[in-house]
Amino acid sequence: DFLNALEEVKPAFGADDSELEEAMPYGIIHFSSSIGAILEDAMLYVANVREQDRLRHTSVLISGPPASGKTALAAYIAMKSDYPFIKLITPASMVGFRDEVAKKDHLHKVFTDAYKSPLSMLIIDNIERIIEWNPVGPRLSNSILQALVTLLQTPPPKGHRLLILATTSRRSVMEQLDIITAFDRQIPVPAVSNVGELEVALNEFKAFGEDQGMTRQAVEAVRGITQSNDVRVGIKTILTTAETAKLSANPVEWFADQLAGEVARYVPLGGGGRGGYE
Amino acid sequence: DFLNALEEVKPAFGADDSELEEAMPYGIIHFSSSIGAILEDAMLYVANVREQDRLRHTSVLISGPPASGKTALAAYIAMKSDYPFIKLITPASMVGFRDEVAKKDHLHKVFTDAYKSPLSMLIIDNIERIIEWNPVGPRLSNSILQALVTLLQTPPPKGHRLLILATTSRRSVMEQLDIITAFDRQIPVPAVSNVGELEVALNEFKAFGEDQGMTRQAVEAVRGITQSNDVRVGIKTILTTAETAKLSANPVEWFADQLAGEVARYVPLGGGGRGGYE
Amino acid sequence: DFLNALEEVKPAFGADDSELEEAMPYGIIHFSSSIGAILEDAMLYVANVREQDRLRHTSVLISGPPASGKTALAAYIAMKSDYPFIKLITPASMVGFRDEVAKKDHLHKVFTDAYKSPLSMLIIDNIERIIEWNPVGPRLSNSILQALVTLLQTPPPKGHRLLILATTSRRSVMEQLDIITAFDRQIPVPAVSNVGELEVALNEFKAFGEDQGMTRQAVEAVRGITQSNDVRVGIKTILTTAETAKLSANPVEWFADQLAGEVARYVPLGGGGRGGYE
Amino acid sequence: DFLNALEEVKPAFGADDSELEEAMPYGIIHFSSSIGAILEDAMLYVANVREQDRLRHTSVLISGPPASGKTALAAYIAMKSDYPFIKLITPASMVGFRDEVAKKDHLHKVFTDAYKSPLSMLIIDNIERIIEWNPVGPRLSNSILQALVTLLQTPPPKGHRLLILATTSRRSVMEQLDIITAFDRQIPVPAVSNVGELEVALNEFKAFGEDQGMTRQAVEAVRGITQSNDVRVGIKTILTTAETAKLSANPVEWFADQLAGEVARYVPLGGGGRGGYE
Amino acid sequence: DFLNALEEVKPAFGADDSELEEAMPYGIIHFSSSIGAILEDAMLYVANVREQDRLRHTSVLISGPPASGKTALAAYIAMKSDYPFIKLITPASMVGFRDEVAKKDHLHKVFTDAYKSPLSMLIIDNIERIIEWNPVGPRLSNSILQALVTLLQTPPPKGHRLLILATTSRRSVMEQLDIITAFDRQIPVPAVSNVGELEVALNEFKAFGEDQGMTRQAVEAVRGITQSNDVRVGIKTILTTAETAKLSANPVEWFADQLAGEVARYVPLGGGGRGGYE
Amino acid sequence: DFLNALEEVKPAFGADDSELEEAMPYGIIHFSSSIGAILEDAMLYVANVREQDRLRHTSVLISGPPASGKTALAAYIAMKSDYPFIKLITPASMVGFRDEVAKKDHLHKVFTDAYKSPLSMLIIDNIERIIEWNPVGPRLSNSILQALVTLLQTPPPKGHRLLILATTSRRSVMEQLDIITAFDRQIPVPAVSNVGELEVALNEFKAFGEDQGMTRQAVEAVRGITQSNDVRVGIKTILTTAETAKLSANPVEWFADQLAGEVARYVPLGGGGRGGYE
Ligand SMILES: Nc1ncnc2c1ncn2[C@@H]1O[C@H](COP(=O)(O)OP(=O)(O)OP(=O)(O)O)[C@@H](O)[C@H]1O
Ligand SMILES: Nc1ncnc2c1ncn2[C@@H]1O[C@H](COP(=O)(O)OP(=O)(O)OP(=O)(O)O)[C@@H](O)[C@H]1O
Ligand SMILES: Nc1ncnc2c1ncn2[C@@H]1O[C@H](COP(=O)(O)OP(=O)(O)OP(=O)(O)O)[C@@H](O)[C@H]1O
Ligand SMILES: Nc1ncnc2c1ncn2[C@@H]1O[C@H](COP(=O)(O)OP(=O)(O)OP(=O)(O)O)[C@@H](O)[C@H]1O
Ligand SMILES: Nc1ncnc2c1ncn2[C@@H]1O[C@H](COP(=O)(O)OP(=O)(O)OP(=O)(O)O)[C@@H](O)[C@H]1O
Ligand SMILES: Nc1ncnc2c1ncn2[C@@H]1O[C@H](COP(=O)(O)OP(=O)(O)OP(=O)(O)O)[C@@H](O)[C@H]1O
Ligand SMILES: [Mg+2]
Ligand SMILES: [Mg+2]
Ligand SMILES: [Mg+2]
Ligand SMILES: [Mg+2]
Ligand SMILES: [Mg+2]
Ligand SMILES: [Mg+2]
Repeated sequence: DFLNALEEVKPAFGADDSELEEAMPYGIIHFSSSIGAILEDAMLYVANVREQDRLRHTSVLISGPPASGKTALAAYIAMKSDYPFIKLITPASMVGFRDEVAKKDHLHKVFTDAYKSPLSMLIIDNIERIIEWNPVGPRLSNSILQALVTLLQTPPPKGHRLLILATTSRRSVMEQLDIITAFDRQIPVPAVSNVGELEVALNEFKAFGEDQGMTRQAVEAVRGITQSNDVRVGIKTILTTAETAKLSANPVEWFADQLAGEVARYVPLGGGGRGGYE
Repeated sequence: DFLNALEEVKPAFGADDSELEEAMPYGIIHFSSSIGAILEDAMLYVANVREQDRLRHTSVLISGPPASGKTALAAYIAMKSDYPFIKLITPASMVGFRDEVAKKDHLHKVFTDAYKSPLSMLIIDNIERIIEWNPVGPRLSNSILQALVTLLQTPPPKGHRLLILATTSRRSVMEQLDIITAFDRQIPVPAVSNVGELEVALNEFKAFGEDQGMTRQAVEAVRGITQSNDVRVGIKTILTTAETAKLSANPVEWFADQLAGEVARYVPLGGGGRGGYE
Repeated sequence: DFLNALEEVKPAFGADDSELEEAMPYGIIHFSSSIGAILEDAMLYVANVREQDRLRHTSVLISGPPASGKTALAAYIAMKSDYPFIKLITPASMVGFRDEVAKKDHLHKVFTDAYKSPLSMLIIDNIERIIEWNPVGPRLSNSILQALVTLLQTPPPKGHRLLILATTSRRSVMEQLDIITAFDRQIPVPAVSNVGELEVALNEFKAFGEDQGMTRQAVEAVRGITQSNDVRVGIKTILTTAETAKLSANPVEWFADQLAGEVARYVPLGGGGRGGYE
Repeated sequence: DFLNALEEVKPAFGADDSELEEAMPYGIIHFSSSIGAILEDAMLYVANVREQDRLRHTSVLISGPPASGKTALAAYIAMKSDYPFIKLITPASMVGFRDEVAKKDHLHKVFTDAYKSPLSMLIIDNIERIIEWNPVGPRLSNSILQALVTLLQTPPPKGHRLLILATTSRRSVMEQLDIITAFDRQIPVPAVSNVGELEVALNEFKAFGEDQGMTRQAVEAVRGITQSNDVRVGIKTILTTAETAKLSANPVEWFADQLAGEVARYVPLGGGGRGGYE
Repeated sequence: DFLNALEEVKPAFGADDSELEEAMPYGIIHFSSSIGAILEDAMLYVANVREQDRLRHTSVLISGPPASGKTALAAYIAMKSDYPFIKLITPASMVGFRDEVAKKDHLHKVFTDAYKSPLSMLIIDNIERIIEWNPVGPRLSNSILQALVTLLQTPPPKGHRLLILATTSRRSVMEQLDIITAFDRQIPVPAVSNVGELEVALNEFKAFGEDQGMTRQAVEAVRGITQSNDVRVGIKTILTTAETAKLSANPVEWFADQLAGEVARYVPLGGGGRGGYE
Repeated sequence: DFLNALEEVKPAFGADDSELEEAMPYGIIHFSSSIGAILEDAMLYVANVREQDRLRHTSVLISGPPASGKTALAAYIAMKSDYPFIKLITPASMVGFRDEVAKKDHLHKVFTDAYKSPLSMLIIDNIERIIEWNPVGPRLSNSILQALVTLLQTPPPKGHRLLILATTSRRSVMEQLDIITAFDRQIPVPAVSNVGELEVALNEFKAFGEDQGMTRQAVEAVRGITQSNDVRVGIKTILTTAETAKLSANPVEWFADQLAGEVARYVPLGGGGRGGYE
């Protein structure tokens, strides 16, 4: 299980436990059955890379709306994998490099490092930012993109094994850029989709303390304002809004107002569509 | 209250009182109840960053039409916050840098400086200009944009706390550029919306001295020319136009003419829409 | 009055009288009442910057069709202002710089120089050319544009006062580029709009010597060819065409032919619109 | 035959057997008669370059959907050709070069090397990646493209012979870029097109061991989910999905679910079209 | 007259007679009355710059279809002007410069040289090529364009006089690029417009020797093939085609065939329009 | 005649016989009367440049569909011309240069070399590739284009003569780029247009040995598959396909299949149009 997995992780190089833990400050809440299914598929890929010779090189794309928990899930899988080498590549880890060439070279170096271990995992977080995607233009760094796609598809040297987990909240951009075909497997991550899942999440988080009545009140208030059972807001947004509400004069009311605002951004009157994100 | 807050601010580094005060030469006039609500929400975020561990890193986008008072409000919040480290990043503070790379590096350095204090606030004023946004093309500095978004989302080191206030008069551009999702919270700032609010603002400012009859006359003149109760002009425009009128041969008439011109730019016949700004 | 003003101007640095005078070789002709109104508004801004603390930093955009006299008016205002520091920035003064960065730095330096005087005026002539605007593409220097807009909006140091006059014949481009919002005030300059104003201008200029009958003949000839009372040609074009005609074999006829050609470019049959310029 | 061919290959320079073998970890499965026809045409070109003087320089484009086996077929042909010099140029072999110029120079050098041998084969794998094609923009390296097309068309020095095999999964892009006319011959490679071919492939691969009943069950499950006889998925995707399924709790079900997902990406309800790939 | 003018030209610097003469190998043929009118207007500008103080700086745009004789006319005017300093700037004179900056600097230097003489003429030939105009994109050198327009508009130092003649076959491009407003005067140059003018031109050139019957035959043949009286082909094309025909086995027939081909490019069936050129 | 011409060519510099011969490995086959007409016009230009003073500088554009024999014809004309200096500029001869500037300088140098001989010919092969044309974007090297067009139009020094032959398979691109007007003369080269010409070509080439019955069989097979008399395939494609077929198990059938495929690319059902090429 999770805690045991944590105990066992002792990476020789790359990320250590604390870096991975920081990526999931609110833990993993099972607000829907899809969370379990996601983790199961992920662990199948973890096992295959470790054991199957012809699958020793596998790349997985974790995609979902903003704040849906993609990074936290990747960190959790990494902790459970028990791989000796784990490395997290984030936009923040690349912000200090001078230009595209330096970033591209860094990416190249991280892969080369990974090849040195017999069993490695690379987490490439937020690949749309890694390639400097900018929807206006649109613009991006073609040289980082080309290097990334090529590195994703290049097998490690004989006798070495590599699992790549990449995250994105712009799946359709990945399709446009033809990056999708560079991945062997895909894992879609959902937002909290309706008020039922919202209530589970808030209760498990103890958003308003132990009092489940206040949670119920908050959920009802959201439904009252939005006139809909749909929510479609990422778990991170829900948890941080609840946390912010705690110091407010009237936590339940403030939470409901703010969350309803978030819901309204994505749920049109009548409830279809998901403006901009897919 | 405001004056007390001022007394207490003694920043170790970064902005000092006078820099913040210069950002609000006409003070803060409560021409509408929304001004109080804005300040209340802002102080909740100020308290959360100071006290809640999981909210120690929060970013807030202050958006509103040109001249609506965004910069003055951010400065006012900063003065009231009593944070030991406050730093103002403006387009003017970056104009001397040679190129995009130098600007990007400066931005990086300002964040790194902020990380050194246990409790910091960064005000990033006019982010559309910071990223060199230019609606024709459109063009912008993608490298500054990428660095900015990444820095907005990167938490400070453990044990450090950081509140970021950013201002923009181009909210729809922020959405297009996908910068919106990098912010945890949003504060919309309104223009002076109708002749009622206009009268409150002019009286509180003593635009035409103590004589409220002249104010009334000016407001009526504006309404007469525009044939509308709508105003939708930023508080800064209203106050500087009134100030300019003072040396005119006929202040009331000159003010009304000029302001009606401003109103006409945004209020079409019949009163809907807000050409270009949202 | 004008001559007195001239006497008093003794700029410590920047432009001297002769540079300003060269900008108006044909003087200022009052072909319409709007010329007086323009000068009155301009002198109000001149006074405000000198006297009002909160208006010590004001920027004014002078816009009008090509050849309408924008530069001459700015020079005239500068001469009348009696400010100790006056500086003219023109495209010609920047043509020798190697590239955008050098031009941007020069602009920065001129502003820094102006800040040193307690009371300064900067005339930025033809800002669409300063930013290297090119309608095809469209293209421009975004780095000069960004620096210009930022410098326009940055107040001088405490205790210093700065009035900025900028000219453009591309007002709609200024709007597209969002430069308009960087200005505090605007002054529109009209072309010579009809044959009545044309006759006033030609007579005051003594285009065909003292003989007002020849002027009348010329104006009638223009109206005959164009079949319209509209003219909509800039005062500079009118005066230089008249001057060129003087050496012609048949001055009145040559003038009328050429001017009718100019009129036809802007006045469509039936008389509406102003092709390309606004 | 194949094994014999393998024995004989002893390249003086360039690729050795193991590099070519690694390109086809699952061997060549004859799931359709077109596989034999492809190999026959290819061997005709191999013979012509070796024997016909005026055909001593021939270039062949191998095109087909992603994962259809293009690279494996090129490697197989190379092994069977018995040419003394064989060289594989892949995007991975170019990722370490600093920029376009370096890549272009490398390409030039590889061709120059090939010219030194009397009988050479170059495999240029994935030419859309070699030229850094990116469908958004669209963008690519024009300098690599120009060098590539020129090198494709330049005959080797007298007395030397060169066969070029290039692969692409973006045939329509090649047409748009006018690269097609640079090739002398073309070989189209199909995906596995229907459930019949799918069953042949899975049985030959022994996807579910020796038990053909399970294969039948898997194929039926795919047909059940997709409600279609069409498959249109590349042989590589089929084989790696089957391999991954082996460690799953329920291999047949997991395989059918995942493959149906792949089928759905390309086969619309009713069965026409091939979204994006041609 | 022409020959006398030639005798008198003794330029201290810049172009000498032979350079100007080479620009008109076939002389100036008066195939239409417009040729005389063009030369008359041009000499008026030549006189004004020499004599009128306020017109000491004048720029003239000579525009017309390709091969209509623009360069030859500019050279002829220069020879007749008797100015002490004449300089020809052509695309060929700039082809050796490394890049845009070097070209821009060269342009700047040529103007600075011209300023040194009390009375100068600059011929800027083919300005669309000088600015590196390319209709696809469209592309051009914005830095050369900006420098050119600024230099066109900058008066020479006091006491110096400068006439600028520029040629272009892309008048509509000049309008798009807003270069037109930088010129004080314009001279349109026509093509040979109909078979009548064609016959005058061929006879004056003695295209088929002294025998006017053969000319008549050729003109009739052209009209027979094109079924039109329109010609709309530049004088240069007509003269070089006639010259080429001389060595042909059947000069009249070959000339008529080729010229009819040229006519067909511009004259659509029925005779309207001028494809591409204006 | 041809063989004699060959004997006489002894270029001091530039191309020698073997370079020109290699450009036409299959000789020149007169599959249509237009071949003779093309050669006749070309030799007229060759004579004019040699003999006529005012035509000492002539440029000719040879255009036609891909593989229609443009390069071979240019080489043949060069061999027959008996000029002392002949130089071939091909994309391959420029591939080794580092960047656009180096290529531009090379081009400049080649022309300068040509100017040194009293009578020179330059063959600029495939000018769309020389300028790095890429239909996507579209992109090209504007600096090479500008240099090329300028060099095409610049006359050699007095007393020197220069004939330029350029080839292109993208005539419409040349028109778009306004390169066409830089040429004095044009020569269109046709593809093999119908089955009649195809049969002549195959017989003259002895594609299937001396047996004209097999040729007839092949031509009939093509017509059977395409259901059309149209062919519209370049002579080079026809000859290389026939050559490749020779080693095939069933040459006639293989040839007909492959050629019908080529025909289908250009001849739509019903026979109009020429997809992409003009
Ligand atoms: N089931 C869950 N899955 C993922 N995260 C969860 C879950 N339950 C709780 N969390 C918490 O929610 C937060 C998810 O944030 P995370 O940064 O991973 O989202 P994200 O999708 O990566 O966001 P972004 O789009 O900004 O990259 C973490 O704090 C994590 O502890
Ligand atoms: N309620 C208010 N809110 C904000 N500013 C106010 C208010 N009342 C008065 N002011 C005054 O109005 C001016 C607001 O100007 P400010 O520069 O902050 O506007 P802005 O929205 O930042 O403009 P810009 O769009 O140009 O950045 C300040 O001088 C401030 O003192
Ligand atoms: N009322 C007037 N206003 C302005 N200029 C006038 C007036 N009367 C006469 N003039 C003369 O007209 C000319 C105006 O030219 P000026 O260069 O100022 O025009 P402009 O609008 O700046 O042109 P451009 O669009 O080319 O910049 C000057 O020579 C000036 O002396
Ligand atoms: N008939 C076949 N043709 C090609 N490959 C086959 C065939 N049968 C089995 N294979 C196996 O299928 C795989 C084909 O993968 P390959 O990388 O060649 O595909 P590809 O089309 O080049 O993919 P990509 O589009 O990613 O470049 C190889 O592992 C090969 O061993
Ligand atoms: N009336 C005329 N006007 C101009 N040129 C004439 C005239 N009569 C004869 N010519 C001859 O015609 C030729 C005109 O060629 P020129 O190069 O000046 O044309 P152009 O319009 O500049 O062409 P391009 O568009 O290529 O620049 C010259 O050789 C000139 O001697
Ligand atoms: N009448 C002909 N004209 C031209 N080439 C011929 C003719 N008859 C036979 N050939 C042969 O056809 C081939 C023509 O090829 P060539 O490379 O010249 O074509 P191309 O049009 O230049 O092709 P590309 O479009 O690829 O540049 C040569 O091998 C030549 O020997
Ligand atoms: Mg994330
Ligand atoms: Mg502000
Ligand atoms: Mg001006
Ligand atoms: Mg492949
Ligand atoms: Mg010319
Ligand atoms: Mg060719």
